[in-house]
Amino acid sequence: MDPDFEARVRDSFARQPMMATLGAQITHLAPGECDITLAYRADLTQQHGFVHAGAISAIVDSAGGYAGYSVMPAGSSVLTVEFKLNLLAPARGARFVARGRVVKAGRTLVVTRGEVVAEGDGEPVTVAVMQQTLIVLHETADR
Amino acid sequence: MDPDFEARVRDSFARQPMMATLGAQITHLAPGECDITLAYRADLTQQHGFVHAGAISAIVDSAGGYAGYSVMPAGSSVLTVEFKLNLLAPARGARFVARGRVVKAGRTLVVTRGEVVAEGDGEPVTVAVMQQTLIVLHETADR
Amino acid sequence: MDPDFEARVRDSFARQPMMATLGAQITHLAPGECDITLAYRADLTQQHGFVHAGAISAIVDSAGGYAGYSVMPAGSSVLTVEFKLNLLAPARGARFVARGRVVKAGRTLVVTRGEVVAEGDGEPVTVAVMQQTLIVLHETADR
Amino acid sequence: MDPDFEARVRDSFARQPMMATLGAQITHLAPGECDITLAYRADLTQQHGFVHAGAISAIVDSAGGYAGYSVMPAGSSVLTVEFKLNLLAPARGARFVARGRVVKAGRTLVVTRGEVVAEGDGEPVTVAVMQQTLIVLHETADR
Repeated sequence: MDPDFEARVRDSFARQPMMATLGAQITHLAPGECDITLAYRADLTQQHGFVHAGAISAIVDSAGGYAGYSVMPAGSSVLTVEFKLNLLAPARGARFVARGRVVKAGRTLVVTRGEVVAEGDGEPVTVAVMQQTLIVLHETADR
Repeated sequence: MDPDFEARVRDSFARQPMMATLGAQITHLAPGECDITLAYRADLTQQHGFVHAGAISAIVDSAGGYAGYSVMPAGSSVLTVEFKLNLLAPARGARFVARGRVVKAGRTLVVTRGEVVAEGDGEPVTVAVMQQTLIVLHETADR
Repeated sequence: MDPDFEARVRDSFARQPMMATLGAQITHLAPGECDITLAYRADLTQQHGFVHAGAISAIVDSAGGYAGYSVMPAGSSVLTVEFKLNLLAPARGARFVARGRVVKAGRTLVVTRGEVVAEGDGEPVTVAVMQQTLIVLHETADR
Repeated sequence: MDPDFEARVRDSFARQPMMATLGAQITHLAPGECDITLAYRADLTQQHGFVHAGAISAIVDSAGGYAGYSVMPAGSSVLTVEFKLNLLAPARGARFVARGRVVKAGRTLVVTRGEVVAEGDGEPVTVAVMQQTLIVLHETADR
Protein backbone atom coordinates (compact mmCIF):
# COMPACT_ATOMS: atom_id res chain seq x y z
CA MET A 1 0.00 0.00 0.00
CA ASP A 2 1.44 3.32 -1.10
CA PRO A 3 1.04 5.89 1.73
CA ASP A 4 1.16 8.66 -0.86
CA PHE A 5 -1.68 7.25 -2.95
CA GLU A 6 -3.81 10.37 -2.57
CA ALA A 7 -1.20 12.79 -3.92
CA ARG A 8 -0.36 10.33 -6.72
CA VAL A 9 -4.02 10.00 -7.80
CA ARG A 10 -4.82 13.71 -7.53
CA ASP A 11 -1.69 14.64 -9.45
CA SER A 12 -2.56 12.21 -12.25
CA PHE A 13 -6.15 13.47 -12.40
CA ALA A 14 -4.93 17.08 -12.57
CA ARG A 15 -2.89 16.17 -15.65
CA GLN A 16 -6.00 14.95 -17.59
CA PRO A 17 -7.07 17.89 -19.77
CA MET A 18 -10.24 15.98 -20.72
CA MET A 19 -11.49 16.14 -17.11
CA ALA A 20 -11.01 19.92 -17.09
CA THR A 21 -12.77 20.18 -20.46
CA LEU A 22 -15.76 18.36 -18.97
CA GLY A 23 -15.52 20.25 -15.66
CA ALA A 24 -15.25 16.96 -13.71
CA GLN A 25 -13.75 16.81 -10.23
CA ILE A 26 -12.71 14.16 -7.70
CA THR A 27 -15.20 14.40 -4.82
CA HIS A 28 -14.20 11.32 -2.82
CA LEU A 29 -10.97 9.36 -2.62
CA ALA A 30 -10.00 6.47 -0.35
CA PRO A 31 -8.07 3.24 -0.92
CA GLY A 32 -9.97 1.37 -3.62
CA GLU A 33 -12.61 4.11 -3.93
CA CYS A 34 -12.92 7.17 -6.14
CA ASP A 35 -15.91 9.39 -6.93
CA ILE A 36 -15.86 11.84 -9.81
CA THR A 37 -18.61 14.46 -10.11
CA LEU A 38 -19.75 16.21 -13.26
CA ALA A 39 -22.15 19.16 -13.31
CA TYR A 40 -24.84 19.35 -15.99
CA ARG A 41 -23.82 21.47 -18.95
CA ALA A 42 -25.88 21.96 -22.10
CA ASP A 43 -22.80 21.47 -24.30
CA LEU A 44 -22.38 17.91 -22.98
CA THR A 45 -25.82 16.66 -23.99
CA GLN A 46 -27.18 14.37 -26.71
CA GLN A 47 -30.16 14.84 -28.99
CA HIS A 48 -32.77 14.34 -26.23
CA GLY A 49 -31.22 16.95 -23.93
CA PHE A 50 -29.71 14.46 -21.47
CA VAL A 51 -26.01 14.26 -20.70
CA HIS A 52 -24.28 12.24 -23.43
CA ALA A 53 -23.23 8.64 -22.76
CA GLY A 54 -19.73 9.67 -23.78
CA ALA A 55 -19.49 12.10 -20.86
CA ILE A 56 -20.98 9.50 -18.51
CA SER A 57 -18.44 6.95 -19.81
CA ALA A 58 -15.59 9.38 -19.35
CA ILE A 59 -16.33 10.00 -15.66
CA VAL A 60 -17.12 6.42 -14.70
CA ASP A 61 -14.12 4.99 -16.58
CA SER A 62 -11.95 7.55 -14.77
CA ALA A 63 -13.58 6.87 -11.39
CA GLY A 64 -12.89 3.15 -11.79
CA GLY A 65 -9.41 3.83 -13.08
CA TYR A 66 -8.47 6.05 -10.14
CA ALA A 67 -10.12 3.70 -7.63
CA GLY A 68 -7.78 1.06 -9.03
CA TYR A 69 -4.78 3.36 -9.23
CA SER A 70 -5.22 4.24 -5.54
CA VAL A 71 -4.27 0.66 -4.59
CA MET A 72 -1.42 0.26 -7.11
CA PRO A 73 2.19 0.63 -5.96
CA ALA A 74 4.23 3.84 -6.05
CA GLY A 75 6.03 4.23 -9.37
CA SER A 76 3.29 2.46 -11.34
CA SER A 77 0.94 3.72 -14.01
CA VAL A 78 -2.59 2.55 -14.90
CA LEU A 79 -4.38 1.82 -18.18
CA THR A 80 -7.96 0.75 -18.83
CA VAL A 81 -8.02 -2.64 -20.56
CA GLU A 82 -11.77 -2.61 -21.12
CA PHE A 83 -15.07 -1.60 -19.58
CA LYS A 84 -18.72 -2.43 -20.06
CA LEU A 85 -21.40 0.12 -19.33
CA ASN A 86 -25.16 -0.37 -18.98
CA LEU A 87 -27.20 2.79 -19.33
CA LEU A 88 -30.20 2.43 -17.02
CA ALA A 89 -32.00 5.75 -17.29
CA PRO A 90 -31.60 9.11 -19.06
CA ALA A 91 -28.81 11.20 -17.53
CA ARG A 92 -31.13 13.96 -16.34
CA GLY A 93 -30.13 16.02 -13.30
CA ALA A 94 -28.05 18.85 -11.92
CA ARG A 95 -24.97 16.72 -11.35
CA PHE A 96 -23.71 13.19 -11.90
CA VAL A 97 -21.61 11.30 -9.38
CA ALA A 98 -19.56 8.42 -10.79
CA ARG A 99 -18.46 5.98 -8.09
CA GLY A 100 -15.63 3.55 -8.86
CA ARG A 101 -14.90 0.71 -6.42
CA VAL A 102 -12.21 -1.98 -6.61
CA VAL A 103 -13.59 -5.52 -6.64
CA LYS A 104 -10.29 -7.41 -6.98
CA ALA A 105 -6.75 -6.05 -6.95
CA GLY A 106 -4.23 -8.44 -8.46
CA ARG A 107 -0.56 -7.81 -9.15
CA THR A 108 -1.13 -7.25 -12.89
CA LEU A 109 -4.89 -6.74 -13.27
CA VAL A 110 -7.43 -4.84 -11.18
CA VAL A 111 -11.19 -5.28 -11.59
CA THR A 112 -13.61 -2.54 -10.58
CA ARG A 113 -17.29 -1.82 -10.60
CA GLY A 114 -18.84 1.58 -10.99
CA GLU A 115 -22.15 3.37 -10.99
CA VAL A 116 -23.29 6.84 -11.94
CA VAL A 117 -25.99 8.53 -9.87
CA ALA A 118 -27.91 11.60 -11.07
CA GLU A 119 -28.68 14.12 -8.35
CA GLY A 120 -30.91 17.17 -8.43
CA ASP A 121 -34.48 17.74 -7.34
CA GLY A 122 -35.97 14.61 -5.82
CA GLU A 123 -34.45 11.20 -5.24
CA PRO A 124 -31.05 10.31 -6.72
CA VAL A 125 -31.36 7.97 -9.71
CA THR A 126 -28.76 5.41 -10.81
CA VAL A 127 -28.27 6.11 -14.50
CA ALA A 128 -25.45 3.69 -15.33
CA VAL A 129 -23.52 0.69 -14.01
CA MET A 130 -20.07 -0.36 -15.17
CA GLN A 131 -17.68 -3.32 -14.88
CA GLN A 132 -14.04 -2.65 -15.76
CA THR A 133 -10.58 -4.23 -16.08
CA LEU A 134 -7.39 -2.21 -15.49
CA ILE A 135 -3.74 -3.13 -15.98
CA VAL A 136 -0.90 -2.08 -13.67
CA LEU A 137 2.19 -0.85 -15.49
CA HIS A 138 4.94 -1.39 -12.91
CA GLU A 139 7.90 1.01 -12.83
CA THR A 140 6.26 3.23 -15.45
CA ALA A 141 5.94 6.95 -14.84
CA ASP A 142 2.33 8.17 -15.08
CA ARG A 143 3.05 10.82 -17.69
CA MET B 1 -36.29 0.45 -44.65
CA ASP B 2 -36.78 4.18 -44.25
CA PRO B 3 -35.79 5.93 -47.54
CA ASP B 4 -35.09 9.09 -45.54
CA PHE B 5 -32.67 7.42 -43.14
CA GLU B 6 -29.80 9.72 -44.07
CA ALA B 7 -31.64 12.96 -43.29
CA ARG B 8 -33.02 11.42 -40.09
CA VAL B 9 -29.56 10.34 -38.88
CA ARG B 10 -27.81 13.58 -39.84
CA ASP B 11 -30.53 15.66 -38.23
CA SER B 12 -30.27 13.71 -34.98
CA PHE B 13 -26.47 13.97 -34.98
CA ALA B 14 -26.68 17.73 -35.56
CA ARG B 15 -28.81 18.02 -32.42
CA GLN B 16 -26.07 16.43 -30.20
CA PRO B 17 -24.20 19.35 -28.61
CA MET B 18 -21.63 16.89 -27.22
CA MET B 19 -20.49 15.99 -30.75
CA ALA B 20 -19.95 19.69 -31.53
CA THR B 21 -18.09 20.13 -28.24
CA LEU B 22 -15.73 17.31 -29.25
CA GLY B 23 -15.57 18.50 -32.86
CA ALA B 24 -16.73 15.10 -34.13
CA GLN B 25 -18.32 14.65 -37.57
CA ILE B 26 -20.08 11.94 -39.55
CA THR B 27 -17.69 10.94 -42.34
CA HIS B 28 -19.54 7.90 -43.73
CA LEU B 29 -23.18 6.88 -43.63
CA ALA B 30 -24.93 3.97 -45.31
CA PRO B 31 -27.65 1.54 -44.18
CA GLY B 32 -26.23 -0.19 -41.10
CA GLU B 33 -22.95 1.75 -41.27
CA CYS B 34 -21.78 4.99 -39.70
CA ASP B 35 -18.29 6.44 -39.28
CA ILE B 36 -17.61 9.34 -36.94
CA THR B 37 -14.26 11.14 -37.09
CA LEU B 38 -12.61 13.11 -34.31
CA ALA B 39 -9.51 15.26 -34.80
CA TYR B 40 -6.80 15.24 -32.12
CA ARG B 41 -7.13 18.11 -29.67
CA ALA B 42 -4.93 18.64 -26.62
CA ASP B 43 -7.96 19.43 -24.44
CA LEU B 44 -9.36 15.91 -25.06
CA THR B 45 -6.34 14.02 -23.72
CA GLN B 46 -5.57 12.04 -20.59
CA GLN B 47 -2.51 12.13 -18.36
CA HIS B 48 -0.21 10.41 -20.89
CA GLY B 49 -1.07 12.84 -23.69
CA PHE B 50 -3.25 10.42 -25.67
CA VAL B 51 -6.90 11.04 -26.48
CA HIS B 52 -9.04 10.14 -23.45
CA ALA B 53 -11.00 6.90 -23.44
CA GLY B 54 -14.09 9.01 -22.72
CA ALA B 55 -13.75 10.77 -26.08
CA ILE B 56 -13.07 7.46 -27.83
CA SER B 57 -16.15 6.01 -26.12
CA ALA B 58 -18.27 8.96 -27.13
CA ILE B 59 -17.50 8.63 -30.84
CA VAL B 60 -17.71 4.84 -31.06
CA ASP B 61 -20.92 4.66 -29.00
CA SER B 62 -22.39 7.30 -31.35
CA ALA B 63 -21.08 5.56 -34.49
CA GLY B 64 -22.72 2.30 -33.38
CA GLY B 65 -25.86 4.13 -32.34
CA TYR B 66 -26.26 5.89 -35.69
CA ALA B 67 -25.36 2.75 -37.64
CA GLY B 68 -28.27 1.15 -35.80
CA TYR B 69 -30.55 4.17 -36.14
CA SER B 70 -29.99 4.14 -39.92
CA VAL B 71 -31.89 0.84 -40.17
CA MET B 72 -34.67 1.72 -37.71
CA PRO B 73 -38.08 2.80 -39.01
CA ALA B 74 -39.19 6.37 -39.60
CA GLY B 75 -40.73 7.88 -36.47
CA SER B 76 -38.51 5.88 -34.11
CA SER B 77 -35.85 6.97 -31.70
CA VAL B 78 -32.73 5.10 -30.49
CA LEU B 79 -31.11 4.57 -27.08
CA THR B 80 -27.92 2.75 -26.15
CA VAL B 81 -28.72 -0.13 -23.78
CA GLU B 82 -25.08 -0.99 -23.13
CA PHE B 83 -21.68 -1.22 -24.76
CA LYS B 84 -18.37 -2.89 -24.02
CA LEU B 85 -15.13 -1.33 -25.17
CA ASN B 86 -11.65 -2.87 -25.31
CA LEU B 87 -8.84 -0.36 -25.54
CA LEU B 88 -6.10 -1.95 -27.64
CA ALA B 89 -3.47 0.76 -27.99
CA PRO B 90 -2.92 4.38 -26.91
CA ALA B 91 -5.10 6.81 -28.90
CA ARG B 92 -2.16 8.54 -30.56
CA GLY B 93 -2.66 10.17 -33.97
CA ALA B 94 -3.94 13.12 -35.93
CA ARG B 95 -7.50 11.83 -36.15
CA PHE B 96 -9.62 8.93 -34.95
CA VAL B 97 -12.22 7.22 -37.11
CA ALA B 98 -14.93 5.31 -35.21
CA ARG B 99 -16.71 2.77 -37.41
CA GLY B 100 -20.07 1.39 -36.24
CA ARG B 101 -21.59 -1.57 -38.10
CA VAL B 102 -24.89 -3.37 -37.47
CA VAL B 103 -24.50 -7.08 -36.71
CA LYS B 104 -28.17 -7.89 -36.10
CA ALA B 105 -31.22 -5.69 -36.48
CA GLY B 106 -34.23 -6.97 -34.60
CA ARG B 107 -37.58 -5.28 -34.14
CA THR B 108 -36.78 -4.15 -30.58
CA LEU B 109 -33.02 -4.60 -30.20
CA VAL B 110 -30.13 -3.89 -32.56
CA VAL B 111 -26.61 -5.23 -31.95
CA THR B 112 -23.59 -3.48 -33.43
CA ARG B 113 -19.84 -3.78 -33.46
CA GLY B 114 -17.43 -0.91 -33.70
CA GLU B 115 -13.78 -0.10 -33.96
CA VAL B 116 -11.72 3.06 -33.68
CA VAL B 117 -8.73 3.53 -35.96
CA ALA B 118 -6.03 6.16 -35.33
CA GLU B 119 -4.69 7.78 -38.47
CA GLY B 120 -1.72 10.10 -38.94
CA ASP B 121 1.84 9.46 -40.02
CA GLY B 122 2.41 5.80 -40.83
CA GLU B 123 0.03 2.88 -40.79
CA PRO B 124 -3.45 3.24 -39.26
CA VAL B 125 -3.71 1.55 -35.85
CA THR B 126 -6.85 0.04 -34.36
CA VAL B 127 -7.05 1.55 -30.88
CA ALA B 128 -10.38 0.17 -29.67
CA VAL B 129 -13.08 -2.41 -30.45
CA MET B 130 -16.66 -2.25 -29.20
CA GLN B 131 -19.75 -4.47 -28.97
CA GLN B 132 -23.06 -2.69 -28.32
CA THR B 133 -26.80 -3.20 -27.79
CA LEU B 134 -29.35 -0.56 -28.86
CA ILE B 135 -33.10 -0.36 -28.29
CA VAL B 136 -35.61 0.93 -30.82
CA LEU B 137 -38.22 3.28 -29.37
CA HIS B 138 -41.08 3.00 -31.87
CA GLU B 139 -43.28 6.02 -32.48
CA THR B 140 -41.07 8.21 -30.33
CA ALA B 141 -39.77 11.50 -31.64
CA ASP B 142 -35.97 11.75 -31.54
CA ARG B 143 -35.90 14.95 -29.50
CA MET C 1 -45.57 -8.18 -8.82
CA ASP C 2 -46.62 -11.75 -9.55
CA PRO C 3 -47.54 -13.50 -6.26
CA ASP C 4 -46.75 -16.84 -7.90
CA PHE C 5 -43.23 -15.84 -8.94
CA GLU C 6 -41.61 -18.66 -6.97
CA ALA C 7 -43.57 -21.46 -8.63
CA ARG C 8 -43.07 -19.81 -12.02
CA VAL C 9 -39.28 -19.57 -11.58
CA ARG C 10 -38.85 -23.04 -10.10
CA ASP C 11 -40.99 -24.59 -12.84
CA SER C 12 -38.92 -22.88 -15.54
CA PHE C 13 -35.65 -23.96 -13.91
CA ALA C 14 -36.89 -27.55 -13.66
CA ARG C 15 -37.44 -27.53 -17.43
CA GLN C 16 -33.77 -26.68 -18.17
CA PRO C 17 -32.05 -29.99 -18.92
CA MET C 18 -28.66 -28.21 -18.94
CA MET C 19 -29.02 -27.40 -15.23
CA ALA C 20 -29.65 -31.09 -14.46
CA THR C 21 -26.69 -32.08 -16.65
CA LEU C 22 -24.47 -29.79 -14.56
CA GLY C 23 -26.14 -30.82 -11.29
CA ALA C 24 -27.00 -27.18 -10.49
CA GLN C 25 -29.78 -26.24 -8.07
CA ILE C 26 -31.61 -23.11 -6.93
CA THR C 27 -30.54 -22.52 -3.32
CA HIS C 28 -32.09 -19.08 -2.74
CA LEU C 29 -35.02 -17.31 -4.35
CA ALA C 30 -36.67 -14.01 -3.46
CA PRO C 31 -38.03 -11.12 -5.54
CA GLY C 32 -35.08 -9.88 -7.59
CA GLU C 33 -32.69 -12.47 -6.13
CA CYS C 34 -31.68 -15.96 -7.18
CA ASP C 35 -28.75 -18.14 -6.12
CA ILE C 36 -27.77 -21.23 -8.07
CA THR C 37 -25.28 -23.69 -6.57
CA LEU C 38 -23.04 -26.10 -8.45
CA ALA C 39 -21.00 -28.83 -6.77
CA TYR C 40 -17.47 -29.53 -8.00
CA ARG C 41 -17.29 -32.37 -10.49
CA ALA C 42 -14.16 -33.51 -12.31
CA ASP C 43 -16.05 -33.74 -15.60
CA LEU C 44 -16.79 -29.99 -15.49
CA THR C 45 -13.16 -28.85 -15.30
CA GLN C 46 -10.71 -27.21 -17.69
CA GLN C 47 -7.07 -28.08 -18.37
CA HIS C 48 -5.79 -26.78 -15.01
CA GLY C 49 -8.27 -28.82 -12.97
CA PHE C 50 -10.52 -25.89 -12.05
CA VAL C 51 -14.20 -25.70 -12.92
CA HIS C 52 -14.56 -24.51 -16.52
CA ALA C 53 -15.60 -20.92 -17.24
CA GLY C 54 -18.43 -22.37 -19.32
CA ALA C 55 -19.97 -24.00 -16.24
CA ILE C 56 -19.42 -20.83 -14.21
CA SER C 57 -21.07 -18.82 -17.01
CA ALA C 58 -24.00 -21.21 -17.17
CA ILE C 59 -24.86 -20.86 -13.48
CA VAL C 60 -24.33 -17.12 -13.18
CA ASP C 61 -26.21 -16.36 -16.41
CA SER C 62 -29.08 -18.50 -15.08
CA ALA C 63 -28.93 -16.93 -11.61
CA GLY C 64 -29.19 -13.47 -13.15
CA GLY C 65 -31.89 -14.63 -15.54
CA TYR C 66 -34.05 -16.09 -12.79
CA ALA C 67 -33.45 -13.12 -10.49
CA GLY C 68 -34.86 -11.04 -13.32
CA TYR C 69 -37.64 -13.47 -14.16
CA SER C 70 -38.79 -13.37 -10.51
CA VAL C 71 -39.85 -9.73 -10.95
CA MET C 72 -41.41 -10.12 -14.40
CA PRO C 73 -45.18 -10.37 -14.78
CA ALA C 74 -47.17 -13.60 -14.89
CA GLY C 75 -47.49 -14.88 -18.44
CA SER C 76 -44.10 -13.54 -19.51
CA SER C 77 -40.95 -15.28 -20.59
CA VAL C 78 -37.29 -14.19 -20.24
CA LEU C 79 -34.29 -14.20 -22.57
CA THR C 80 -30.70 -13.13 -21.94
CA VAL C 81 -29.76 -10.28 -24.26
CA GLU C 82 -26.11 -10.25 -23.23
CA PHE C 83 -23.79 -10.67 -20.28
CA LYS C 84 -20.22 -9.77 -19.44
CA LEU C 85 -18.20 -11.93 -17.06
CA ASN C 86 -14.91 -11.16 -15.35
CA LEU C 87 -13.05 -14.20 -14.05
CA LEU C 88 -11.24 -13.12 -10.88
CA ALA C 89 -9.66 -16.31 -9.57
CA PRO C 90 -9.48 -20.01 -10.47
CA ALA C 91 -12.77 -21.81 -9.75
CA ARG C 92 -11.30 -24.05 -7.07
CA GLY C 93 -13.56 -25.37 -4.29
CA ALA C 94 -16.18 -27.87 -3.23
CA ARG C 95 -19.11 -25.83 -4.51
CA PHE C 96 -19.82 -22.62 -6.38
CA VAL C 97 -22.66 -20.28 -5.49
CA ALA C 98 -23.81 -17.95 -8.26
CA ARG C 99 -25.78 -14.98 -6.94
CA GLY C 100 -27.91 -12.98 -9.38
CA ARG C 101 -29.43 -9.68 -8.22
CA VAL C 102 -31.66 -7.26 -10.13
CA VAL C 103 -30.20 -3.75 -10.47
CA LYS C 104 -32.96 -2.21 -12.58
CA ALA C 105 -36.27 -3.70 -13.66
CA GLY C 106 -37.82 -1.89 -16.59
CA ARG C 107 -40.90 -2.85 -18.54
CA THR C 108 -38.90 -4.30 -21.46
CA LEU C 109 -35.36 -4.68 -20.14
CA VAL C 110 -34.01 -5.88 -16.81
CA VAL C 111 -30.37 -5.34 -15.76
CA THR C 112 -28.72 -7.62 -13.20
CA ARG C 113 -25.39 -8.12 -11.54
CA GLY C 114 -24.02 -11.43 -10.42
CA GLU C 115 -21.09 -12.99 -8.63
CA VAL C 116 -19.84 -16.53 -8.14
CA VAL C 117 -18.33 -17.50 -4.81
CA ALA C 118 -16.24 -20.66 -4.33
CA GLU C 119 -16.79 -22.38 -1.01
CA GLY C 120 -14.90 -25.25 0.59
CA ASP C 121 -12.12 -25.33 3.15
CA GLY C 122 -11.21 -21.84 4.33
CA GLU C 123 -12.65 -18.49 3.38
CA PRO C 124 -15.08 -18.17 0.46
CA VAL C 125 -13.47 -16.64 -2.62
CA THR C 126 -15.25 -14.56 -5.28
CA VAL C 127 -14.23 -16.18 -8.56
CA ALA C 128 -16.33 -14.19 -11.02
CA VAL C 129 -18.47 -11.06 -11.39
CA MET C 130 -21.09 -10.50 -14.07
CA GLN C 131 -23.23 -7.70 -15.51
CA GLN C 132 -26.22 -8.76 -17.61
CA THR C 133 -29.16 -7.49 -19.68
CA LEU C 134 -32.42 -9.47 -19.96
CA ILE C 135 -35.50 -8.90 -22.10
CA VAL C 136 -39.07 -9.50 -20.97
CA LEU C 137 -41.24 -11.30 -23.53
CA HIS C 138 -44.75 -10.28 -22.51
CA GLU C 139 -47.60 -12.73 -23.06
CA THR C 140 -45.17 -15.44 -24.14
CA ALA C 141 -45.33 -18.88 -22.57
CA ASP C 142 -42.00 -19.93 -21.02
CA ARG C 143 -41.73 -23.16 -22.96
CA MET D 1 5.67 -17.68 -33.19
CA ASP D 2 5.75 -21.20 -31.72
CA PRO D 3 6.09 -23.73 -34.59
CA ASP D 4 4.47 -26.35 -32.35
CA PHE D 5 1.37 -24.26 -31.62
CA GLU D 6 -0.98 -26.87 -33.06
CA ALA D 7 0.20 -29.71 -30.82
CA ARG D 8 0.24 -27.35 -27.82
CA VAL D 9 -3.35 -26.21 -28.41
CA ARG D 10 -4.73 -29.65 -29.20
CA ASP D 11 -3.01 -31.15 -26.15
CA SER D 12 -4.48 -28.47 -23.89
CA PHE D 13 -7.95 -28.92 -25.36
CA ALA D 14 -7.72 -32.68 -24.87
CA ARG D 15 -7.08 -32.09 -21.16
CA GLN D 16 -10.39 -30.14 -20.71
CA PRO D 17 -12.90 -32.67 -19.36
CA MET D 18 -15.68 -30.08 -19.79
CA MET D 19 -15.25 -30.14 -23.58
CA ALA D 20 -15.61 -33.94 -23.58
CA THR D 21 -18.68 -33.66 -21.32
CA LEU D 22 -20.27 -31.31 -23.88
CA GLY D 23 -19.01 -33.37 -26.83
CA ALA D 24 -17.24 -30.32 -28.30
CA GLN D 25 -14.38 -30.65 -30.79
CA ILE D 26 -11.81 -28.42 -32.48
CA THR D 27 -12.79 -28.27 -36.16
CA HIS D 28 -10.38 -25.57 -37.37
CA LEU D 29 -7.05 -24.37 -36.06
CA ALA D 30 -4.60 -21.87 -37.54
CA PRO D 31 -2.47 -19.09 -36.02
CA GLY D 32 -4.92 -16.73 -34.33
CA GLU D 33 -7.95 -18.83 -35.33
CA CYS D 34 -9.83 -21.63 -33.63
CA ASP D 35 -13.26 -23.12 -34.32
CA ILE D 36 -14.99 -25.39 -31.83
CA THR D 37 -18.08 -27.34 -32.88
CA LEU D 38 -20.83 -28.66 -30.63
CA ALA D 39 -23.57 -31.02 -31.78
CA TYR D 40 -27.12 -30.49 -30.53
CA ARG D 41 -27.98 -32.64 -27.55
CA ALA D 42 -31.25 -32.51 -25.62
CA ASP D 43 -29.41 -32.59 -22.29
CA LEU D 44 -27.70 -29.26 -23.12
CA THR D 45 -30.90 -27.27 -23.65
CA GLN D 46 -32.76 -24.61 -21.70
CA GLN D 47 -36.48 -24.31 -20.95
CA HIS D 48 -37.46 -23.40 -24.53
CA GLY D 49 -35.66 -26.40 -26.06
CA PHE D 50 -32.73 -24.42 -27.50
CA VAL D 51 -29.11 -25.04 -26.57
CA HIS D 52 -28.35 -23.30 -23.26
CA ALA D 53 -26.38 -20.05 -23.25
CA GLY D 54 -23.98 -21.77 -20.85
CA ALA D 55 -23.01 -24.31 -23.50
CA ILE D 56 -22.75 -21.57 -26.12
CA SER D 57 -20.55 -19.58 -23.73
CA ALA D 58 -18.37 -22.58 -23.03
CA ILE D 59 -17.54 -23.21 -26.68
CA VAL D 60 -17.06 -19.58 -27.72
CA ASP D 61 -14.96 -18.74 -24.66
CA SER D 62 -12.81 -21.79 -25.47
CA ALA D 63 -12.62 -20.95 -29.18
CA GLY D 64 -11.41 -17.44 -28.34
CA GLY D 65 -9.05 -18.79 -25.69
CA TYR D 66 -7.43 -21.29 -28.05
CA ALA D 67 -7.28 -18.77 -30.91
CA GLY D 68 -5.28 -16.63 -28.50
CA TYR D 69 -3.24 -19.52 -27.12
CA SER D 70 -2.20 -20.44 -30.69
CA VAL D 71 -0.20 -17.20 -30.95
CA MET D 72 1.29 -17.30 -27.44
CA PRO D 73 4.87 -18.47 -26.92
CA ALA D 74 5.93 -22.03 -26.12
CA GLY D 75 5.99 -22.62 -22.36
CA SER D 76 3.11 -20.24 -21.70
CA SER D 77 -0.37 -20.83 -20.38
CA VAL D 78 -3.59 -18.89 -21.05
CA LEU D 79 -6.42 -17.64 -18.84
CA THR D 80 -9.61 -15.80 -19.77
CA VAL D 81 -9.70 -12.39 -18.06
CA GLU D 82 -13.24 -11.59 -19.21
CA PHE D 83 -15.66 -11.95 -22.06
CA LYS D 84 -18.90 -10.33 -23.16
CA LEU D 85 -21.46 -12.30 -25.12
CA ASN D 86 -24.50 -11.03 -27.03
CA LEU D 87 -27.12 -13.67 -27.77
CA LEU D 88 -28.68 -12.78 -31.12
CA ALA D 89 -31.07 -15.63 -31.82
CA PRO D 90 -32.20 -18.90 -30.22
CA ALA D 91 -29.53 -21.63 -30.49
CA ARG D 92 -31.64 -23.86 -32.71
CA GLY D 93 -29.88 -26.26 -35.09
CA ALA D 94 -28.06 -29.53 -35.58
CA ARG D 95 -24.65 -28.13 -34.65
CA PHE D 96 -23.07 -24.92 -33.43
CA VAL D 97 -19.73 -23.64 -34.69
CA ALA D 98 -17.93 -21.20 -32.40
CA ARG D 99 -15.27 -19.18 -34.23
CA GLY D 100 -12.61 -17.39 -32.18
CA ARG D 101 -10.31 -14.90 -33.91
CA VAL D 102 -7.45 -12.84 -32.46
CA VAL D 103 -7.92 -9.08 -32.85
CA LYS D 104 -4.78 -7.93 -31.03
CA ALA D 105 -1.97 -10.01 -29.58
CA GLY D 106 0.09 -8.14 -27.02
CA ARG D 107 2.87 -9.50 -24.84
CA THR D 108 0.63 -9.74 -21.76
CA LEU D 109 -2.94 -9.42 -23.07
CA VAL D 110 -4.64 -10.84 -26.13
CA VAL D 111 -8.02 -9.58 -27.36
CA THR D 112 -10.29 -11.80 -29.46
CA ARG D 113 -13.67 -11.70 -31.08
CA GLY D 114 -15.93 -14.69 -31.57
CA GLU D 115 -19.20 -15.73 -33.08
CA VAL D 116 -21.36 -18.83 -32.90
CA VAL D 117 -23.18 -20.00 -36.02
CA ALA D 118 -26.03 -22.53 -35.92
CA GLU D 119 -26.06 -24.95 -38.82
CA GLY D 120 -28.69 -27.46 -39.88
CA ASP D 121 -31.46 -27.30 -42.43
CA GLY D 122 -31.46 -23.99 -44.27
CA GLU D 123 -29.14 -21.02 -43.99
CA PRO D 124 -26.62 -20.80 -41.15
CA VAL D 125 -27.69 -18.32 -38.46
CA THR D 126 -25.35 -16.31 -36.23
CA VAL D 127 -26.68 -16.91 -32.72
CA ALA D 128 -24.04 -15.12 -30.64
CA VAL D 129 -21.14 -12.66 -30.84
CA MET D 130 -18.40 -12.31 -28.26
CA GLN D 131 -15.55 -9.95 -27.34
CA GLN D 132 -12.88 -11.33 -24.99
CA THR D 133 -9.67 -10.51 -23.14
CA LEU D 134 -7.05 -13.20 -22.38
CA ILE D 135 -3.87 -13.05 -20.30
CA VAL D 136 -0.61 -14.80 -21.20
CA LEU D 137 1.05 -16.56 -18.28
CA HIS D 138 4.68 -16.75 -19.39
CA GLU D 139 6.79 -19.72 -18.28
CA THR D 140 3.77 -21.42 -16.74
CA ALA D 141 2.95 -25.00 -17.60
CA ASP D 142 -0.57 -25.41 -19.01
CA ARG D 143 -1.65 -28.00 -16.47
